[in-house]
Amino acid sequence: MTEYLEMSAAVNELLAKDEILILCHKNPDGDTIGSAGALYWALRALGKTAAVLCSDPIPQMYNYMMLETYSRQFKPKFVVAVDVASMQLFGENNDMQEFSQNVNLCIDHHGSNAAYAYGTYLDADAAACCEILTELIPMMGVTIDPHMADCLYTGIATDTGCFRFASTRAKTHAAAATLMEAGANVEELNSILFESKSRARVEVERMALESLEYYFENRCAMVCLTKEQIAASGVPAAELEDITSLPLGIEGVQVGLTLRQQPLGSYKISVRTVRGIAANEIVTCLGGGGHGRAAGCEIEGMQENVKAAILREVERALKKLDEQGGELSL
Amino acid sequence: MTEYLEMSAAVNELLAKDEILILCHKNPDGDTIGSAGALYWALRALGKTAAVLCSDPIPQMYNYMMLETYSRQFKPKFVVAVDVASMQLFGENNDMQEFSQNVNLCIDHHGSNAAYAYGTYLDADAAACCEILTELIPMMGVTIDPHMADCLYTGIATDTGCFRFASTRAKTHAAAATLMEAGANVEELNSILFESKSRARVEVERMALESLEYYFENRCAMVCLTKEQIAASGVPAAELEDITSLPLGIEGVQVGLTLRQQPLGSYKISVRTVRGIAANEIVTCLGGGGHGRAAGCEIEGMQENVKAAILREVERALKKLDEQGGELSL
Repeated sequence: MTEYLEMSAAVNELLAKDEILILCHKNPDGDTIGSAGALYWALRALGKTAAVLCSDPIPQMYNYMMLETYSRQFKPKFVVAVDVASMQLFGENNDMQEFSQNVNLCIDHHGSNAAYAYGTYLDADAAACCEILTELIPMMGVTIDPHMADCLYTGIATDTGCFRFASTRAKTHAAAATLMEAGANVEELNSILFESKSRARVEVERMALESLEYYFENRCAMVCLTKEQIAASGVPAAELEDITSLPLGIEGVQVGLTLRQQPLGSYKISVRTVRGIAANEIVTCLGGGGHGRAAGCEIEGMQENVKAAILREVERALKKLDEQGGELSL
Repeated sequence: MTEYLEMSAAVNELLAKDEILILCHKNPDGDTIGSAGALYWALRALGKTAAVLCSDPIPQMYNYMMLETYSRQFKPKFVVAVDVASMQLFGENNDMQEFSQNVNLCIDHHGSNAAYAYGTYLDADAAACCEILTELIPMMGVTIDPHMADCLYTGIATDTGCFRFASTRAKTHAAAATLMEAGANVEELNSILFESKSRARVEVERMALESLEYYFENRCAMVCLTKEQIAASGVPAAELEDITSLPLGIEGVQVGLTLRQQPLGSYKISVRTVRGIAANEIVTCLGGGGHGRAAGCEIEGMQENVKAAILREVERALKKLDEQGGELSL
């Protein structure tokens, strides 16, 4: 079991230690990298030695953070994990295996944090780990400089979809204000983080829009990609996940369906719904599961049969909504 | 000429008056409507009578603001314009003609404000007129309630593309934090404002992506829509404007071109560029104009000739960039 720390106790631990290794989660995103970057530069500002370790390569788009990555000459005396909710998320890299078993301090914002570190500072209401560090770094006696501000803004902006997601709270905006005052290059960062799509991603969107079909008086929209189309696009699976929000994003649509054929031929179905329609109920009969507004299932069969099966369930859910008196709104 | 007022003087004027008419600009957006809505409810909270007038219908998506629109029984004694930079932007509605000639107070954030009102409060650094009102309304002695907060958040979020645009400053985020603390339903608002695209808009994106072509080793991407395609999509001209950012949003693209054929056959060309390439220089030889990173021109001719003409200019600009040593970055 971990010891849950106050922020001041976490700060005191960091201040007392040197030769600090910072661990990120695998498949690194802006928040784990930004947290590592900001903490790295804050420790450096205090005259300490530090390095960053991640099982997977750090995406080039984050090069501006100028992190010093771990090498074996570095002999850490204190290990900090940032934005890592559980041991499995450290990944399989050999060096990582060595250090992830003995994490001295974990700083995280995931409610699901598995309490694997000796000490944990957890704020499950924070929209990003970088939101926590925006408060923590000044408590270390370090002034957030423009470079740290860039790192911290990166994590906050990416974890909130640029302040769109429900996790955004008043403190998130207050942190962004602080970081802009500290000199974050928000215009450039937003351009790097949000305005650029890979050619492959653009190709997937083109295919998705070409396959778009409407059902039940346009209350349901469906995108369907075959395994051949997915292979031809060359898009990694993680990027395909994003298009599942496309059909529900169309005005008037109450149920958005995304069918992706898997390499062996079955169809993975993602269901997204407006408030008032239970996505997990739609997929229950088909052996699927999930949450109230996002759920999924996987069905074998010919494309037309798969479509018919899921559409039957959608029709039932829409009828139920009508009987209840319609969608909830603001 | 107008008298430029301090915020406190603008507040005192509003406090001293009653029966107040609030004017919006034509083709109303979230900022002019949100400003009108928040000011309307703030004046009502002070026990005053007020109404809102706009030349064009207020889009249904803003119904949650529950504004009282002007009717002829209402005899205004004081006229306030919000987010309206010039007289022409009031539009042609008959009632509007009567009142827009004698605007007592203008509250605006456009640097181009034409000083048409008797008194003007202008903050050209504000990202939105609603950002100004987030400060001004409390100065009137009114506590921002959740409903006013919804109106104000709407204007700030829409005018900044949800905090992405370069106009976003630290104060913009600070205002958003204030509004969330005041109870703004940010989750629902973001869903209404940013997650919904009309079917027509989705159809235009589909067409645009189908027409997408790459040139000069993918450094230039071009979208081209014929007048027949545009007509078939049924999309209003204003919504077509948005797709001009699509080609430059593709990774590695330095010049994004959008060609839209006009009803009489000529092609309107929108040029968007990365930093380091002057968009306005690209269109100069073709009789166009604009800014450093967004410019445009209009050319007569067959589609293939039009494409060749603009691509020649793009090629020249890319060569110039290479000679200068490449794109500037963070």
